[in-house]
Amino acid sequence: MTDTNLQSTPIAITMGDAAGIGPEIIAKAFRAQPALLNGCFVVGDVGTMRRAAAIVTQSGQAPLPVALIADPSAALQVPPHCIPVLQVGEPLLPVPWGRISGTAAAFAGQCVEQAADWALHAKVRAIVTAPLNKAALAAAGAPYDQFPGHTELLQACAARHLRQDVAQVPVRMMLVNEELRTVLVSIHLSLREAIAAVTYDSVLQTLQITHAALLPMLGRPPRIGVAGLNPHAGEGGLFGREEIEIIAPAIEAARAKGYWVSGPWAPDTVFMRARSHPGSEGEFDVVVAMYHDQGLIAVKYLGVENGVNVTLGLPMVRTSPDHGTAFDIAGTGRAAPSSLLAAVRLAGVLSADAMGR
Amino acid sequence: MTDTNLQSTPIAITMGDAAGIGPEIIAKAFRAQPALLNGCFVVGDVGTMRRAAAIVTQSGQAPLPVALIADPSAALQVPPHCIPVLQVGEPLLPVPWGRISGTAAAFAGQCVEQAADWALHAKVRAIVTAPLNKAALAAAGAPYDQFPGHTELLQACAARHLRQDVAQVPVRMMLVNEELRTVLVSIHLSLREAIAAVTYDSVLQTLQITHAALLPMLGRPPRIGVAGLNPHAGEGGLFGREEIEIIAPAIEAARAKGYWVSGPWAPDTVFMRARSHPGSEGEFDVVVAMYHDQGLIAVKYLGVENGVNVTLGLPMVRTSPDHGTAFDIAGTGRAAPSSLLAAVRLAGVLSADAMGR
Repeated sequence: MTDTNLQSTPIAITMGDAAGIGPEIIAKAFRAQPALLNGCFVVGDVGTMRRAAAIVTQSGQAPLPVALIADPSAALQVPPHCIPVLQVGEPLLPVPWGRISGTAAAFAGQCVEQAADWALHAKVRAIVTAPLNKAALAAAGAPYDQFPGHTELLQACAARHLRQDVAQVPVRMMLVNEELRTVLVSIHLSLREAIAAVTYDSVLQTLQITHAALLPMLGRPPRIGVAGLNPHAGEGGLFGREEIEIIAPAIEAARAKGYWVSGPWAPDTVFMRARSHPGSEGEFDVVVAMYHDQGLIAVKYLGVENGVNVTLGLPMVRTSPDHGTAFDIAGTGRAAPSSLLAAVRLAGVLSADAMGR
Repeated sequence: MTDTNLQSTPIAITMGDAAGIGPEIIAKAFRAQPALLNGCFVVGDVGTMRRAAAIVTQSGQAPLPVALIADPSAALQVPPHCIPVLQVGEPLLPVPWGRISGTAAAFAGQCVEQAADWALHAKVRAIVTAPLNKAALAAAGAPYDQFPGHTELLQACAARHLRQDVAQVPVRMMLVNEELRTVLVSIHLSLREAIAAVTYDSVLQTLQITHAALLPMLGRPPRIGVAGLNPHAGEGGLFGREEIEIIAPAIEAARAKGYWVSGPWAPDTVFMRARSHPGSEGEFDVVVAMYHDQGLIAVKYLGVENGVNVTLGLPMVRTSPDHGTAFDIAGTGRAAPSSLLAAVRLAGVLSADAMGR
C-alpha cells in the first residue's frame, strides 16, 4: 500500500467522556499540530467539541472551527485548523464538567463502538481514544456498565465482528513512552485477582501477543524481558513459587517457539534494565509485567506527558493517551494534549506497519 | 552533643558476604572518598579485606593498606587511605567469588550481630551494612537461616537488647535516593502474603514509624503520601476494597494524631507526584508503599547507583546500599561504590540527627 493510499484512510479520535478533559485536549491537539492531525477526525458530539474549542481559544487567538462531516472519508477534505466531527447519534445535552454522568459515559461508549466498527471495516486506519471515566461507565447502564474500560469494550466489538467468543480475541495493554515499553498480563483487576490471573496460559499468551505485535514494529523479534511476580522474582522460591511453577515454564514454551525471551527477573530492576535513554540502550525492547501497577509505576515515573497506551491483539490499531478524564481540571483549558499527540503519532506509525505488512 | 563528640564515635561498616561485591566496594569507597570514610571501620575479616583491597588496586596506584584494630574507637587513630578492620571471630578461609557459601553468609551474619551490639551500646554511632546474599543466608545454618535479610536480623538484635519480643520492635524499610523516599509496609514476603500483610494495624504502624523517623530529619512533620494497594487505588471499590476498608481508616487514624498524611492514591502515579528533581519539588516527602516492588520499582527506575536503604524503627541508625551481592561480577573489581558511599553519607546525617535530638 502506498503512502497515498495510507493518507486516504483517516484516523478516528473518539471524544471520550464529555465531562472530562477529552474534548479540550483534542481541540488543543488540532490547534497545536495541524499537520499531524491532518487526516484525523473526531467521533463525538459537535456541540461538545464546539464548547471545548471555545475553552481552549484564548483572546487574540483565531477561532477553531468545528466542521460536521457525514462520513469518515470526508475528514480528508476539511481544511487545516478545522476540527472535523462526525456526530454520533442525537446531539448530547451539555453535561457539567468534572461530574460523573452516566449519559456522558454511555455517549462516549457509543462513540467507541462506532469508531471500532469503522476500523474493523477499514473505513479508518486506526482509532485513538480520549479518556473514559470508569466510575461514570459503571453508571452508564447496559451495555457499557459491564466494561471496566476501553480495552474490554474494544475486545467485545472485535469478537462480535469476528463472530467469536471474547476469549478467542485475547488482548493485552501495552504502555509506551520514549524510554520504555511494557505489556501487562492483566489490567483492571484487584491485586488479589491479578495474582490469580498469573497462569501458564495467560503468561504464554502475553508473550505470544507481545512477540506478534512488536515483530513488524521493530522488523525483528523483540527482546522480551519478563518480570517475576514476587519480590526478587521469588528469590529461588523463598518468597513465592509462581516464578518457578508458572512463569519460567511459560518462558521456556515461548523460547521453544523461537521468541527472544529472558527472565523471570526481579521486578524492581527489570524496568531500569529495559530503560533506553540517551547514551544507553535498554537490555530489552519490552518488559512483560505481571500486573497493572508493576508496569505502570515504571512507565509513569518520569511523567505521563508522553505516555501512550496501545491495545495489542485486536484486529485494528488502537492507541490512547496514558491518563484519565482528570475531572479536577476538566473545563479549565489547562489539560495538556502531549500524551494525545503522542498517541496520534504512534497510531500513524502502527497503522502504517499494519497496512504495510 | 557537640561535633567533636560526634567525630569521636565511629561508624561501623559490616563487610557483607565475602563471596559478593561487599569487600571490594568497601575498599573502593575508602580509596575514593577518604575524608568521608574517616571515622569508619570495617567489621569483618582482615584477609578478605586485604584480598579486596588488592583487587581494586590498579597497577600504578598506591596500595590500600588494611589495618587490624582492636576496638571501635581505634578506628579514629588510623591514618587516611588505610582501611581499619576489626576482625570478627576466627579468620575466614578464602571463599570463591560469586558462589553461595553458607560459611561466608554465617560469618557475615556474625559481623552484623557484632556491629549491632556496638550500636546498641553506643560504641558506634551508626552501622552501614554491605550486602548479604539471601540464598546463602538460608544455607548458613542456625541462627542465620531464620532471617530473610538484614532487616529482620537487626530487629532480632534490637529486641534481644531491649529484652522485648520482636513484635514490640516494629521496623520498616525506607529507600532513599536523590528524588524519592519510600517506606514499605512489608518486604520479604511473596506478593500473596504481602497483600495479607496490609492490615489496619500494619499500615497505621508504618505511618507512625515514618512520621517519627522523618520528623527530626526534616525538622517538621513529613508530608506522607500513601499508595493504594490495587490499580487506581481500587477505583472506588471496583477493583478491590482494601483502600476503603483498611488503608483510608488507617490514614484517618494517623491524621487524628496530627500527622500530615494524604491518600490512598493510585499507585502508578503517587511516586511520580512525590518525585523531587531540579525545578520541581515533589508533593510528598515520602511515599508509604503497600508492598516491596510497589516502592522499589519507582526508587530503582533511574538506577541503583545512589539508592540507600534505611531501617526505620530500630534503636540505632542503620543504612545500606540499595543493591545485592552481585555474584556475577564479584571479584572483578567492576562494582561501583556509589550506593555504599551514599549510605555512609546518609548514616552520618541520620546519626547526627539522632544524637542531636
